[in-house]
Amino acid sequence: MKTISLKTRQPVEFIDITEQVAQAVTESKVRDGLCTVFVPHTTAGLTINENADPDVREDIIAVLNKLIPAAGAYRHLEGNSHAHIKSSLLGHSHTVIVQGGEMQLGTWQGIYFCEFDGPRSREVWVRITRSGQHDA
Amino acid sequence: MKTISLKTRQPVEFIDITEQVAQAVTESKVRDGLCTVFVPHTTAGLTINENADPDVREDIIAVLNKLIPAAGAYRHLEGNSHAHIKSSLLGHSHTVIVQGGEMQLGTWQGIYFCEFDGPRSREVWVRITRSGQHDA
Amino acid sequence: MKTISLKTRQPVEFIDITEQVAQAVTESKVRDGLCTVFVPHTTAGLTINENADPDVREDIIAVLNKLIPAAGAYRHLEGNSHAHIKSSLLGHSHTVIVQGGEMQLGTWQGIYFCEFDGPRSREVWVRITRSGQHDA
Repeated sequence: MKTISLKTRQPVEFIDITEQVAQAVTESKVRDGLCTVFVPHTTAGLTINENADPDVREDIIAVLNKLIPAAGAYRHLEGNSHAHIKSSLLGHSHTVIVQGGEMQLGTWQGIYFCEFDGPRSREVWVRITRSGQHDA
Repeated sequence: MKTISLKTRQPVEFIDITEQVAQAVTESKVRDGLCTVFVPHTTAGLTINENADPDVREDIIAVLNKLIPAAGAYRHLEGNSHAHIKSSLLGHSHTVIVQGGEMQLGTWQGIYFCEFDGPRSREVWVRITRSGQHDA
Repeated sequence: MKTISLKTRQPVEFIDITEQVAQAVTESKVRDGLCTVFVPHTTAGLTINENADPDVREDIIAVLNKLIPAAGAYRHLEGNSHAHIKSSLLGHSHTVIVQGGEMQLGTWQGIYFCEFDGPRSREVWVRITRSGQHDA
């Protein structure tokens, strides 16, 4: 298992981790298999989305903040219920296919760590597993 | 494949299945690999979130109910469209890394079965796969 | 890796790809393992939901359109921010268990490609990996 360490700077921000995950795949020397990316936090999540225009990430964040405001009639007393909810909506694990020694993403896809209760020190865990010789 | 059987008691509730999944990992004797958890229902889902304060789950449920009310102008005549929608938002499969014979979760993470149309008898399916000796 | 090619016909529609994924599993001759389904786009997603009444898909689409309208105060200038957001909410990768040579879904479950910015030519990528003989 490979650990990617991050320091987030904002309360809510999406950080591009595509390069770090791709590097973990390269270092594993696995040619064909799966790459599982896992976020071990409950107020942060993971998503795959557009890698070109950063306005897309801003729009995703703005809509999430509108649907699930930071302030509200929440029971949890730590004041970060909105972050827990956003993290459940985006999810904590994604699986990407590895082929020919490289992680396979679409042309416009990047992998983003989604901070919802920053700034904090965070981790992302990556495991690369090899396909058997008869897999498809 | 290991099957976890559940009986839900409420129309909407999150049930902690962390212990049952951890036990399936232990029984598998797999040291390093992946644990895939799958919910075979269309009005229930799966999430990973806070294992300490139960108010977090109540807040998640309250926001989901507010965004997607049980009563509404739905076409589906069974009256549980809201449950289908919630189940698609949280998802049906999650993958957790297994290392050193143990499922790897963050300190505050638990795995929750999310009932949205209970009470019912439900199942969760778990598969543990072993990494090859050259995996990373 | 198997590629499923699709042509979507509507701006927003869910296309049932269960049969194509099941066929990829059969062709792989893998008896026990995992089937990973991945959508390499940023304005489309993937979900598992009801395979019987098509009104359920219409209800899911209607609620997503209500929560995240196509028109809004978005920064991204291409006019499809809503599609990017919907795609992040439903996700891009799902993992299904393979047992006895067949993909294991619940009775009422189908796998749907979710177009949010069509019509377009689209792809879905499928990888089937075999369990080791000592896996659980």
